[in-house]
Amino acid sequence: VKFSTIDNGTRDGMLVLVNNDLTRMIRCHGTHGTLREAIEEWDSFLSNVAHLDPDGVASEPFVTEHALAPLPRAWQWLDASAFGCHGELLQKAYDLPPVPSSPPLMYQGMSHQFLAGHHRSRFPSEEHGIDFEAELGVIIGDVPLGCDPDDAMGQIKLIVLINDWSLRTLGAAEMRTGFGWVRAKPACSMAPIAVTPDELGSAWKNGRIHLPVMVDYNGVRFGAACGSAMDYGFHELVAHAAATRELCAGTVIG
Amino acid sequence: VKFSTIDNGTRDGMLVLVNNDLTRMIRCHGTHGTLREAIEEWDSFLSNVAHLDPDGVASEPFVTEHALAPLPRAWQWLDASAFGCHGELLQKAYDLPPVPSSPPLMYQGMSHQFLAGHHRSRFPSEEHGIDFEAELGVIIGDVPLGCDPDDAMGQIKLIVLINDWSLRTLGAAEMRTGFGWVRAKPACSMAPIAVTPDELGSAWKNGRIHLPVMVDYNGVRFGAACGSAMDYGFHELVAHAAATRELCAGTVIG
Repeated sequence: VKFSTIDNGTRDGMLVLVNNDLTRMIRCHGTHGTLREAIEEWDSFLSNVAHLDPDGVASEPFVTEHALAPLPRAWQWLDASAFGCHGELLQKAYDLPPVPSSPPLMYQGMSHQFLAGHHRSRFPSEEHGIDFEAELGVIIGDVPLGCDPDDAMGQIKLIVLINDWSLRTLGAAEMRTGFGWVRAKPACSMAPIAVTPDELGSAWKNGRIHLPVMVDYNGVRFGAACGSAMDYGFHELVAHAAATRELCAGTVIG
Repeated sequence: VKFSTIDNGTRDGMLVLVNNDLTRMIRCHGTHGTLREAIEEWDSFLSNVAHLDPDGVASEPFVTEHALAPLPRAWQWLDASAFGCHGELLQKAYDLPPVPSSPPLMYQGMSHQFLAGHHRSRFPSEEHGIDFEAELGVIIGDVPLGCDPDDAMGQIKLIVLINDWSLRTLGAAEMRTGFGWVRAKPACSMAPIAVTPDELGSAWKNGRIHLPVMVDYNGVRFGAACGSAMDYGFHELVAHAAATRELCAGTVIG
């Protein structure tokens, strides 16, 4: 199933089901009119919307430009550095000594705002070293304290694409304090469509997405990140985060 | 005005006004039945509840043990190290070189769960080095990108007391990665009462609380933190955080 969130003037937007070719949609009404609410009772929500046909007579045109981030605000955003090659780039960008990659590197980022993919992102100054970063993310259900990777797998409800903006000039100084990033990490952007893992078929395997993420920069191919090359699967990242805390439904793991 | 949030089985609880001696309360009904919602339209909410009398005939007994954290979950929790003496303790606890105190040190902590003051806090192991920390916090309204300290002062809506739990053994390793704390920072606890700044009278001055925070440990006085000794006022901490991001209503700054 494919979902999107349409701008209706509210902070959480309006949740819709989208058809396969991303041209039609149908509204998810009622108490689960937002992904923020639906994710808290995801399995019953999914069965409640199973009869909705985004290609049927009750459907409407889907216009990407009307979409917000699928989850315009989330309670928690935990972003991992789960690719060995990313760790090497990070060292180079920040002029750091080698950082051990086990346990997985993870920080708590701002989650109260995920921008739409086509929103203008506002930055105070180019001198802050504006950088972009393609990321895969999952949106999870409630995960108990101490959850193991196998159980965590079952709590992976949706897959999203994220652009993680960074301000590298500010980031180097913040890293040195050991407190992690605040000023260096403004709001991320999230692509308009969130999909259930089964939409990926056999490409969803071992908690990894065995597909490339194509990255264009001003219309020119910039890179293609290989989802299968993650050092940790998403289920392992979820379990890592849950080692000392419960994770609530609607947590986004990058 | 004094507020508390009563456990009614929901994730956000039920917002109530509390009387001066913390013995009686009255419910804040309707669309602003939770602090999460009320804080988004705080000034109009305050005028709407001005007629409610927590000592009047419609009031009920206030029982501290029924209270959750005033804000049981928040969109954002930014915790600063705003006392010079705290920086020195941190260095000692983590065996670190001196950390510069300007700009203010601040990290993004988990905000999807603030425990009630009297809740049991669950930790996986004593070997993680469980530590507690008294903190003052403010809950703010919407703050635009680039807000200056003077304007930020007007967005300080409520003052709360927080116990910031840390797992020091895990914390030292996480600090060295530069990514900040995830495993080392489980859910904080929040004392049951949130007050508007005017409740503190002349003790609320320069964005600081000129009162001691008395800390008892198993019934014995452990310390008394001096709120006026902050190197930065709360308005300056809010402005620091807003340098590269909008802050949403309901953000908690410690």
